[in-house]
Amino acid sequence: MDEKYIENVKELIELKDSDKVKELLSDLHPADIAELCNELSPEDARFVYLLLDNETAADVLVEMDEDVRKDFLEILPSETIAKRFVDYMDTDDAVDLIREMDEEKQEEIISHIEDIEQAGDIVDLLKYDEDTAGGLMGTEMVIVNENWSMPECLKEMRQQAEEMDEIYYVYVVDDDERLRGVFPLKKMITSPSVSKVKHVMKKDPISVHVNTSIEEVVQTIEKYDLVAVPVVDSIGRLVGRITVDDVMDEVREQAERDYQLASGLSQDVETDDNVARQTTARLPWLLIGMIGGIGNSMILGNFGETFAAHPEMALYIPLIGGTGGNVGTQSSAIVVQGIANNSLDVEKTFKQVAKESVVALINATIISLLVYIYNFIRFGGAATVTYSVSISLFAVVMFASIFGTLVPMTLEKLKIDPAIATGPFISITNDIIGMLLYMSITVLLS
Amino acid sequence: MDEKYIENVKELIELKDSDKVKELLSDLHPADIAELCNELSPEDARFVYLLLDNETAADVLVEMDEDVRKDFLEILPSETIAKRFVDYMDTDDAVDLIREMDEEKQEEIISHIEDIEQAGDIVDLLKYDEDTAGGLMGTEMVIVNENWSMPECLKEMRQQAEEMDEIYYVYVVDDDERLRGVFPLKKMITSPSVSKVKHVMKKDPISVHVNTSIEEVVQTIEKYDLVAVPVVDSIGRLVGRITVDDVMDEVREQAERDYQLASGLSQDVETDDNVARQTTARLPWLLIGMIGGIGNSMILGNFGETFAAHPEMALYIPLIGGTGGNVGTQSSAIVVQGIANNSLDVEKTFKQVAKESVVALINATIISLLVYIYNFIRFGGAATVTYSVSISLFAVVMFASIFGTLVPMTLEKLKIDPAIATGPFISITNDIIGMLLYMSITVLLS
Repeated sequence: MDEKYIENVKELIELKDSDKVKELLSDLHPADIAELCNELSPEDARFVYLLLDNETAADVLVEMDEDVRKDFLEILPSETIAKRFVDYMDTDDAVDLIREMDEEKQEEIISHIEDIEQAGDIVDLLKYDEDTAGGLMGTEMVIVNENWSMPECLKEMRQQAEEMDEIYYVYVVDDDERLRGVFPLKKMITSPSVSKVKHVMKKDPISVHVNTSIEEVVQTIEKYDLVAVPVVDSIGRLVGRITVDDVMDEVREQAERDYQLASGLSQDVETDDNVARQTTARLPWLLIGMIGGIGNSMILGNFGETFAAHPEMALYIPLIGGTGGNVGTQSSAIVVQGIANNSLDVEKTFKQVAKESVVALINATIISLLVYIYNFIRFGGAATVTYSVSISLFAVVMFASIFGTLVPMTLEKLKIDPAIATGPFISITNDIIGMLLYMSITVLLS
Repeated sequence: MDEKYIENVKELIELKDSDKVKELLSDLHPADIAELCNELSPEDARFVYLLLDNETAADVLVEMDEDVRKDFLEILPSETIAKRFVDYMDTDDAVDLIREMDEEKQEEIISHIEDIEQAGDIVDLLKYDEDTAGGLMGTEMVIVNENWSMPECLKEMRQQAEEMDEIYYVYVVDDDERLRGVFPLKKMITSPSVSKVKHVMKKDPISVHVNTSIEEVVQTIEKYDLVAVPVVDSIGRLVGRITVDDVMDEVREQAERDYQLASGLSQDVETDDNVARQTTARLPWLLIGMIGGIGNSMILGNFGETFAAHPEMALYIPLIGGTGGNVGTQSSAIVVQGIANNSLDVEKTFKQVAKESVVALINATIISLLVYIYNFIRFGGAATVTYSVSISLFAVVMFASIFGTLVPMTLEKLKIDPAIATGPFISITNDIIGMLLYMSITVLLS
C-alpha cells in the first residue's frame, strides 16, 4: 500500500464515490483496510467504515492502531459501537476495545449488545485483571464432552464451528465442565468413528490458570510451541482460551517496553505520535539527567583545590563517567533480559554477582591498564593523574557492574519492573558515583 | 521444575537407575525434558537421551538451548544424529540443527539420513539464505489438489496427516503445484461432501516468497494473525510453510538483539554464558568508550587556558556529556523501533527530522532555562559559565536529537542494521561532540 494508492482513496472519498471505494475495499484484507484507515482522517475513516459489512468492520477495528481507534470511536454513538462492532467481535477483542473507554461509555455499550451470551461473557471477562490470563482470554472455543461418541462429537463441533472464524483445537471437558483433554483437529480425519472422545483425546493438556500472569502465559505458549492455550479456574473448569496472535503482540510489547525504558523513554511512543506525546515521554528522563548533572557539578565544586593542584584531572571526567554508565548499562541489560526470557533465577543473586565480578575484574584490569599506559606516555609515571585515573576507572567498573546487577535483581524481588533500572537511571547513578570515587581516590592519593 | 527435582534426577543417573529415570521422563513434555537436559552435564544428558524413544528424543533436541545442544551433539557420531534425530524431525528443525555444524559433519549426517525424501528436502532447504523465508520454512504440509472432490481430499489428507504432529491449514494447489488456496480445517467438518475442493477453499491466500526477508515474514504473520504462512517460489509453486512458533522466536530474538546493541553488548549473551563469552561481548564497546574518553581528554586538554580562566567550567562536563548521550539514545531508539515494527518510512527522513527538531526545541528550551536559573542563583547572571552552559546545553540537545535520528535512518537506507547506532555508539559520539560544542561556545563567549 503506497502513497499513491492512499491518495487515490482519499480522492474517491472526497468525491463521495461509494461504489468505487467499496470495490477497492472488497479486494483488501481487514488488516489492510485497518492500515488504510490509520492513514486517513477520522472523518474519512468513518466514510470507509460505513461501507463495510458488520463482520469486516469489526475485524478492521480490531486491527487498527489504538490511537486511531480511540479517535474514531469517540465520534460514534455507543449503540453503533455495540451493534456494529462488539456483537461481531471475539470476546477477547471486544474486551480490549471496551477497556479503552471510560466507565460510563463501557456501561452504555454493554447495555446495547444484543447477544445476551456475548454481553455476559464480556462482563465476566472485564472483571479479570488486565495483566492475567483472564484478562487476555476469549471465550470462543469448540468444546466437546469426553463421553460423547465421535459422530456426536463431530455433529456438535460442526454446529459450534459455524460461528467461529477458525478453530485450531477442540477442548474436551467432563460433565462438570472441567478440562480433561485436547482433541487435535487432525484426529477428526484420522480417528475411527467408533471411538469415544475420551479415547482419542490427548489427556492432561497444558493449560494456564485465570490468575496466571501474562508473562507466564507467554512463556508457556513459547515453551510448548502452542497455537492456543486453554484457561481454567481454581477448580479446573475450562473458562477461556488464549491464542498465539495475542501472545505474539505481548512478546513484542514487552520487548519494546524494556527497550524503551533502557533508552530513557518513560512511555510507549511511536514515530507517528504527536509532538506533545513525544515530549512528555522524553522530558522526564532528561530532567532527571539534568538534576544528576547539577548534582555532579556540586560534587565537583567541592574539589576546587584538587582541580587547582591537578588541573589535568578535569580532562578525564568524561572517561570515568562514561565508562561507569556503559558498564552499568551492560550489566543491568543482561539481568533484565535474563528475567524476561526466564533464563535467570532471581533467587541466585549471589551467584550472578560473583560471576559478574569476575567479568568486571577482567574488563576493569584491561581498561585501566591501557589507560595507565596512555597516561604514562602523556604525563609520566610520577603524575598523580596517571595512577589516580586508572585506579578510579578500576573502581568504577567494579562498582558499576555489581550495582548494575544488584539493582534490577532487587527490584524484581520487590515485584517492581526491573527495566526501570536500566538506561538513563543506571547511567546517571553511575556517573555521580563515578565522580565521587574519582575525586575521593584523587584526594587520597595526592 | 525446581532444584530438588533436578538433584533427584542427578542422583538416579549417578545410580544408573534407568527404570526410575524412564518413569520420571514419561510424565514430561519434550520441552521439559529439554529444560532438564540444559541443567545436566553433557554426559548425564546423554544418559537421559538414550532412554528416550526416537520421536521424543528428536523433539527434545529441538527444544534444547543452542549451546547445550552443540556440546551434546559433539559427543555423538554423525550416524546416530542422522538416524535417531534428523529422521524424526521436521525439515525446518533439522536444517537449523545441521546449520550449526561444520560442513564436513553436515555432509556426513545428510549421507546417513535413511528417508531419501527427507534428505532431499534438507539438501534443498540448506541452499536458501538463513535470513529468508526459504531458510526458515519446512516442507511438512498437507497439500490437496483443487480439482479433487471432498471425499478424495479427506482420504488424501488422512494419509498425509498420519506423518505429521499437527496440522492447522491444508494448502490447495493446481496441477502445476502452484498455490491456489487454503483449506481451513473447520471446512472439513462444515462443508458438504459433494463439493470440489476449489469451491470450498479460500482463494488467494496470503503467502510469502522464498526470498522474502525474515523481518517481512514476521510482519506478515503478525499483521494477518496467521498460524502458518505458505512459501512460494518465483512461479508461484508451493515449496514450504513457516509456522508461528518459529516466527515468535524470531520476534523475541530481533527485539533482544536491538536491546542488546542498545545496551552495548556486541553479541548475544545470556546470564548463564561463561565468563569468556560475557567478556568478549562486553569489552569491545568498553574499549570504544575508552578511546572516546581519551579522545575527549585530548580535546579538553586543548582548552587549558579556558579552564584556567573559568575553573567552574569543569563542573558541568558531566551534565553536558550526559544530556547529549541521553537525548541521542532516545532519538535513535525511537527510529530503530519504528523501523522494527514497520511504522516508520525511512524515505521520509526530512519529515522525521523536522518533527524531531520541534520536540528537541521544546526539551532544549526547558532544560537550558532551568539550568540557567540554577546557575544564575549559584554564580550570578554575569558569569560566563551561567550563559555558556545553557547555550551549550541547548546546542547539544538540538544536535543530539537530529544526529540520533539521521544516523540510524541513513544506516537503514544503506542496508546496515540501524540498531548498531544506538546505545554506546550514540552516547560516545554525542559526548565528544558535546565537549567540542561546550568548549567552542565558551571560547566564543569569553
